[in-house]
Amino acid sequence: MSYPRVALIGLGLIASSMFWAMRRAGLAGDVAGYARSAETRETARRIGLCDTVCDSAAEAVAGADLVVLATPVGVMGQVAAEIAPHLKSGATVIDVGSVKGTVISDVSPHIPAGVHFIPCHPMAGTEHSGPEAGFSTLFDNRWCLIVPPADADEAAVERLESYWHALGANTERMDAEHHDLVCAVVSHIPHLIAYTMVGVADDLRRVSDQEVIKFSAAGFRDFTRIAASDPTMWRDVFLTNKDATIEMLGRFTEELFALQRAIRTGDGEQLHAYFTRTRAIRRGILQAGQDTDKPDFGRAKVER
Amino acid sequence: MSYPRVALIGLGLIASSMFWAMRRAGLAGDVAGYARSAETRETARRIGLCDTVCDSAAEAVAGADLVVLATPVGVMGQVAAEIAPHLKSGATVIDVGSVKGTVISDVSPHIPAGVHFIPCHPMAGTEHSGPEAGFSTLFDNRWCLIVPPADADEAAVERLESYWHALGANTERMDAEHHDLVCAVVSHIPHLIAYTMVGVADDLRRVSDQEVIKFSAAGFRDFTRIAASDPTMWRDVFLTNKDATIEMLGRFTEELFALQRAIRTGDGEQLHAYFTRTRAIRRGILQAGQDTDKPDFGRAKVER
Ligand SMILES: NC(=O)c1ccc[n+]([C@@H]2O[C@H](COP(=O)([O-])OP(=O)(O)OC[C@H]3O[C@@H](n4cnc5c(N)ncnc54)[C@H](OP(=O)(O)O)[C@@H]3O)[C@@H](O)[C@H]2O)c1
Ligand SMILES: NC(=O)c1ccc[n+]([C@@H]2O[C@H](COP(=O)([O-])OP(=O)(O)OC[C@H]3O[C@@H](n4cnc5c(N)ncnc54)[C@H](OP(=O)(O)O)[C@@H]3O)[C@@H](O)[C@H]2O)c1
Repeated sequence: MSYPRVALIGLGLIASSMFWAMRRAGLAGDVAGYARSAETRETARRIGLCDTVCDSAAEAVAGADLVVLATPVGVMGQVAAEIAPHLKSGATVIDVGSVKGTVISDVSPHIPAGVHFIPCHPMAGTEHSGPEAGFSTLFDNRWCLIVPPADADEAAVERLESYWHALGANTERMDAEHHDLVCAVVSHIPHLIAYTMVGVADDLRRVSDQEVIKFSAAGFRDFTRIAASDPTMWRDVFLTNKDATIEMLGRFTEELFALQRAIRTGDGEQLHAYFTRTRAIRRGILQAGQDTDKPDFGRAKVER
Repeated sequence: MSYPRVALIGLGLIASSMFWAMRRAGLAGDVAGYARSAETRETARRIGLCDTVCDSAAEAVAGADLVVLATPVGVMGQVAAEIAPHLKSGATVIDVGSVKGTVISDVSPHIPAGVHFIPCHPMAGTEHSGPEAGFSTLFDNRWCLIVPPADADEAAVERLESYWHALGANTERMDAEHHDLVCAVVSHIPHLIAYTMVGVADDLRRVSDQEVIKFSAAGFRDFTRIAASDPTMWRDVFLTNKDATIEMLGRFTEELFALQRAIRTGDGEQLHAYFTRTRAIRRGILQAGQDTDKPDFGRAKVER
C-alpha cells in the first residue's frame, strides 16, 4: 500500500534518491517537491526530479498523503511550523533526519491533531549532496530506522513500513534515545574523527598538501571521502546529537590513549590483541551483506 | 631494464601483487619465493605464485639479481641476517615495509659490500593479506616511495625505478625521516583511529554487536574495513614508527578536543568552517586520480 500524493521538502541526496526509488517501484503517483533555493528548484525541474516542483513548501504539501522532511535537521522545526497549517487531515509526516531526539521535540509541537508524525532514518548515504546526488538503489538492502511516538497509529506505521520496503529498505523500530546512541557510534563519531584527521593533515606545514594528496593511501583516502560530506548537515547533526556524541567521544579518546600508551611503552602484545579483536566486526558486516569484500573495494577491475 | 632473477621473501599481499604485476609486464624471468610457514608455501605452489617456491630464504636468494623483503617490518633485520651470506655480488636488495627509519637501521648492517640496499614503500594496499590477496593492478597509478641511502649507486636506483614503473607505479625519492612522518599522517594514524573506533563499538554493551553490524552506515563501515587489516603488520608499524605516530596523535587529539569543545558550547560556525575546509583535500585526491568519485564508491551499479 502506498501514498497517492507525496511531498518532498528539501531536494537533496535523500529526497532525490527517494524519488528515483519510488519511480523504480512504480509508486510515484504524484510527487511534489520544494527546496529553499531557486537554484535547486531549477535543477530539479531540469533533471525531472518530482512531477511538480513548487515555489513554496505550503503549496507542495497541499493535498499530500505523505510529507517527507528531508532538510538538514537544524531547520526541521521551522519547516514543520511553515507547513503545519497546510497539512491534509489523515496525512503522514515523516522526517529522514540523522538525529531523532531533537527533531522530535522540534517538530512534534507543530503537528496538528489528525496528522501522523512518524520519524524515520534511512541508514544509507554517500558523501555527495544536492538534487543531482540521488540514485534509485541507495536504500537497497539498507536499514530504515522508524521511531514511532508512543501513541502512534499502528496502521499508519505499517503503511509507512511497506512504503520503505517498496523503496528497497528493511525497517526496524527503535526508540529515539537508543537511535541517537547507535547512530553516534556507527555514523556520527566516525564522521567527526574523519573530519578531524583530514583537518590535521591540511594543517601540517612539514607535510605539504601536495604530498598528502599524492601519497594518500588506504586509510586516509577513505577518511577524505567521509570528510567531504555536507558541512551544514553535519554541523546540525553534532549540535543536535550533542549528548550521545560527547559521551561516545569520551569513550573513544579513553581507548585511543590506552593504545597510544601501548605504542609508547612498546607493548606489542596489547596492540596485536586489540587489532585482532576488531576483525570479527568486519566479518559480521560482510555476512550481513552491508558491504563488499572486493580487494580493492570495487575501485578498479581486478584481474591477474 | 629489469632483473633476470628475482627473489620474494614473504609471500603476502605485496609480494604476490608484485609477482602478478611482473607477469603482466612480461618481466618475470625467474622468480623464486619463500615464506615462513609451510602452509603459505603450499598455497603459493598451488596457485602458481612464483616459478619456484623454496623451503629456505637462503635458497631463494641464491643467484638473485633483485631480492625483495616483503615480511612485516619487525622481522626485516632478522631476515636480512639470514640471507646476507647468500647474496650475489652486485645484487639489489629492497624492502617494501611501511616504515623506513627503523627498517634501515635494522637491515643495513647486514648488507655485504657490493650489494645495493635500496628501501622502498609502495603506497598501495588493501585490508587483505596473505598469498591469495595479491592482484596485478594493485600498483597501477599508485606511488612507490624510494629512500636511497646517501651513498647509493645511481645506476642501481634508476634500474629499480624503471622496475617499479613497469609494475604500474610512479616513483618518488624521499628521505627516511620525512617518509615516516608523511606515512604517519596518510596511513598509520588513520589506521590506529579506525582500529580504536571499531574497538569502542565492540566494547559497547548498550549498543549490541548485532546493531553495530546491521546499521553500519558510511563512516563506520569504512572504518571496519580498515580495521580488518593484518594485526601483525600493524603492530610492527606502530612499534617501529613510534616517534612520528606519537607526535601526530598529539596533533590529532588536540584538534579533536577543539571540535568537541565547539560541540559542547554549540559553536556551529566553527564546526561549519572546519567541515568546509576539509573538502578541498578530497577534491585534490580525485583530481590526482588517486580515488574514484562514484556516489556509492563502486559498491553497486548506479542507475536511475
Ligand atoms: N546524506 C546522508 O548520508 C544522510 C543519510 C541519512 C539521513 N540524512 C538526513 O537527511 C536529511 C537530508 O540530507 P541530504 O543528504 O539529502 O541533504 P542535502 O543533499 O544537503 O539536501 C538538503 C536539502 O534541504 C534543503 N533545505 C535546506 N534548508 C531548507 C529550508 N530551510 N527549507 C527548505 N529546504 C531546505 C536544501 O535546499 P537548497 O539546495 O536550496 O539549499 C536541499 O535541497 C538531513 O536531515 C540528513 O541528516 C542524510
Ligand atoms: N598491506 C598493505 O597495505 C601494505 C602496503 C604497503 C607496504 N606494506 C608492507 O609490506 C610488507 C608486507 O605486507 P603484506 O601486506 O604483504 O603482508 P602479509 O600479506 O601479511 O604477508 C606477510 C608475509 O611475510 C611472511 N613472513 C612473516 N614473518 C616472516 C619471517 N620471519 N620470515 C619469512 N617470512 C615471513 C609471511 O609468511 P607466513 O604467511 O608464512 O606467515 C607472509 O608470507 C610489510 O612490511 C608491510 O608493512 C603493506
